[in-house]
Amino acid sequence: MTNLECFFTPRSVAIFGASTNPLKSGYKLFENLARNSIAKLYPINPHGGEIFGIHVYTSLKEVPDSIDLAVIFVPNEMVIGILQECITKGIQGAIIEAAGFEEVGEEGLQIRNQIAQITDNFTKIRIVGPNCTGITYIGENGDGLYTSFVPMPKIKPGSFALISQSGFTNGGYFLDVATHYPSLGFRYVCAIGNKMDLSENEFLAHMIKDPKVSTIGIYVESFRNVREFIHLCREGINHYKKKIILLRSGTSEYGAKAAKSHTGALAEKEELIKAVVRQSYCIPADDFYDFFAIGRVLEFAFQNQLSWPSDPNIAILTISGGAGAVLSDLCSKYELNIPDLSESAYTSLKALYPPWMSPNRFAVLDIWPAVEQAKGNLQAVMYQCIEIALKDPGVKVLLLTSFYTQDSWKIDWLALKSLIEKYKKPIFVWLFGKYQDVLTAEDIFQQIQIPVFFVEHEMVSICAKIITAQRRSKVSHE
Amino acid sequence: MTNLECFFTPRSVAIFGASTNPLKSGYKLFENLARNSIAKLYPINPHGGEIFGIHVYTSLKEVPDSIDLAVIFVPNEMVIGILQECITKGIQGAIIEAAGFEEVGEEGLQIRNQIAQITDNFTKIRIVGPNCTGITYIGENGDGLYTSFVPMPKIKPGSFALISQSGFTNGGYFLDVATHYPSLGFRYVCAIGNKMDLSENEFLAHMIKDPKVSTIGIYVESFRNVREFIHLCREGINHYKKKIILLRSGTSEYGAKAAKSHTGALAEKEELIKAVVRQSYCIPADDFYDFFAIGRVLEFAFQNQLSWPSDPNIAILTISGGAGAVLSDLCSKYELNIPDLSESAYTSLKALYPPWMSPNRFAVLDIWPAVEQAKGNLQAVMYQCIEIALKDPGVKVLLLTSFYTQDSWKIDWLALKSLIEKYKKPIFVWLFGKYQDVLTAEDIFQQIQIPVFFVEHEMVSICAKIITAQRRSKVSHE
Repeated sequence: MTNLECFFTPRSVAIFGASTNPLKSGYKLFENLARNSIAKLYPINPHGGEIFGIHVYTSLKEVPDSIDLAVIFVPNEMVIGILQECITKGIQGAIIEAAGFEEVGEEGLQIRNQIAQITDNFTKIRIVGPNCTGITYIGENGDGLYTSFVPMPKIKPGSFALISQSGFTNGGYFLDVATHYPSLGFRYVCAIGNKMDLSENEFLAHMIKDPKVSTIGIYVESFRNVREFIHLCREGINHYKKKIILLRSGTSEYGAKAAKSHTGALAEKEELIKAVVRQSYCIPADDFYDFFAIGRVLEFAFQNQLSWPSDPNIAILTISGGAGAVLSDLCSKYELNIPDLSESAYTSLKALYPPWMSPNRFAVLDIWPAVEQAKGNLQAVMYQCIEIALKDPGVKVLLLTSFYTQDSWKIDWLALKSLIEKYKKPIFVWLFGKYQDVLTAEDIFQQIQIPVFFVEHEMVSICAKIITAQRRSKVSHE
Repeated sequence: MTNLECFFTPRSVAIFGASTNPLKSGYKLFENLARNSIAKLYPINPHGGEIFGIHVYTSLKEVPDSIDLAVIFVPNEMVIGILQECITKGIQGAIIEAAGFEEVGEEGLQIRNQIAQITDNFTKIRIVGPNCTGITYIGENGDGLYTSFVPMPKIKPGSFALISQSGFTNGGYFLDVATHYPSLGFRYVCAIGNKMDLSENEFLAHMIKDPKVSTIGIYVESFRNVREFIHLCREGINHYKKKIILLRSGTSEYGAKAAKSHTGALAEKEELIKAVVRQSYCIPADDFYDFFAIGRVLEFAFQNQLSWPSDPNIAILTISGGAGAVLSDLCSKYELNIPDLSESAYTSLKALYPPWMSPNRFAVLDIWPAVEQAKGNLQAVMYQCIEIALKDPGVKVLLLTSFYTQDSWKIDWLALKSLIEKYKKPIFVWLFGKYQDVLTAEDIFQQIQIPVFFVEHEMVSICAKIITAQRRSKVSHE
């Protein structure tokens, strides 16, 4: 296995292209590093000077100490010379963030071939990138290695790991996810760019063996080696008990054209991708929202130590018959099963309903009549019905629709924690109500790590995709 | 055509079941009415008293004046007696909000049959409901007729009209939409419940002829008369230039079971529903989020006087190659076309790009290299590229990905208004960035009535669905 430690926990890092000008990306990159680093930093820039109180060397030759990792943020034509210096110095790894390689055609391809030559086909030094936003490794207290040139917040340490062929997932969109879901923690945020040398497979091989990782999210525009990828995913899922999410773009004619201009990736057939998903037991994501939403669901479940079923038996709890009908249709569409309630669950439920309206026999708990019967005590009815559903051995997952306002029908959602701990079954929440109150409620659900959705079919399809992947891996394992 | 005026603009309303107890729904119903009414109100309750300074009559017989509309909010077994009094008094219409009719089986069906009998098959008095949250009609300044027993905010008057078989769309979920999108205006919010007498068709027939209505959203769990529904939709769309959205639940086995217990609706085949969508030129919604998101897109476009194309030629503008690739795949999936740029557009674009990276020939404008070329001036590049895309005659709609933060890369989105006014082409925005800043940006986009999305495939699929419906109606019209 390739040793990637120098990319995550180097003792010393040389940064080529570190800038003293706060308007430049070379400054932002150094700022990310300096604010969060556990490594010793050696900024290198022919102009010299000082950044964040750290001496800037005018060339690598001047650096007296040994260096584990080089971060290269300079125009593409300067990269070869720098790599030669790095090899001479015995540096093990380089992250090339510059663009202008495979993705720009002939000229870029020539540079790539020269790099392959001088590195003896990437044996003298291992390379991440080029055309990427670098590696972020998050240690115990949020410090670690932050090599992106996109301004990054201090990241909460956790068990979610990202491998991405786009800077989007550790730049613009990552900022969105990290600030919207502060309770979500990460261990790796890796952009692999054009993957001239190291690809998703080397990173995946490393991450599946990291006991601190629970979920691995992979965005790629092409596969380096499909067989190896499938093998690694299966090993990660079945042996190391990881969850793996896959977002694969460039699956269509348009997408392939766009991906080619982005990272120089070649198109693979859509059918191939579907086969990869089936065989690797990955959970496929439809887009970036979906990618991180699946990650959030899995990570929250991991934190709450919930178990995922391989049979798709779910219950719906709703205060609106219309919402219940639409959710039921969506369950059919995404092949989730709504079982009949157990005798015991039905009996408990019936006791809460008015004489003029019995509950459903099947697991769509439309609780409004019970709320009327309880003279509007939504909180009490909601709790009793949630517990009835979770207690039913035939119900494996609960889809909860929640109306929330701060005034009438306020619910103490924090108290849901005890039911989660008791029954250990996943709960998904579709949340609606007065807008400002909904934002408050979303925050409360985040505290107890229950995933919230605002789009019903997203909630249902994600639930279905996780269970399907669970079933595939279980069947293969038996 | 059935005259529904008494349900929207009655001069006088008798409210059966109005309560003086603020904890009861009969109080909340009267509160909604009293706060917003342009009609004279006559609360009726055997206990008498006073609500909101208005005298409560102990029976209808005591009311000295003539009454146009009855709102009936009492247990199901009392409804028949009240209806008889209403007929005697010559009241033209009644909204029955009580539940316990078709949806509860035998007993409820008996009451229904008795009502049909005493009303001479609904000729002596027209009925909305039962089992519904009533009619809301919004007049010029937000006043009008608010008959829901769910607390309602004062609604912004506008051109969106709702017909719904669920109280969800004028209760829990409506509150969400109205508070999240205060710039969205409504004219009717009608819950038709079990539609014992009046159905979606009578309301639709009324609304398509209302010149103040632009978009009609219909949620049903069954159709009263499919042929008539299709005929009315076509007339509304082709002749009166309305847009019509259809959310039809109960299309699956589970959904049908849930709908039956909700409004007693019978299942129709999924294939039938698809045929209805094709033939009626409606825009189909997948769930409630989708339903209102489509409405928002259409209403915002109506306010901005934008034109919808019937050919699906769109451009994508992105600052992330990965986001561009994923959006391109989604366009393929939802059958949107990404054309090549015109020569003139390509030439203008190329002038903004660095020598090492040309823009795409096809209409995926990955603007990051141009931003680097402009030394990080995202605002300038964004504007120039938006205009290049909108100006291209081959581009009919723009899908814009927008990163937004208040600090670096802040963009003056309000200025986009002038480009919208100049080119009149629809723009969809997928928004991301620092969470708090994103909330601010969403608000800005709402001011200039550009629809914002947080889930990419929702944005793309809604764009595709609107254009498809446009094409169907145009082809039929030629």
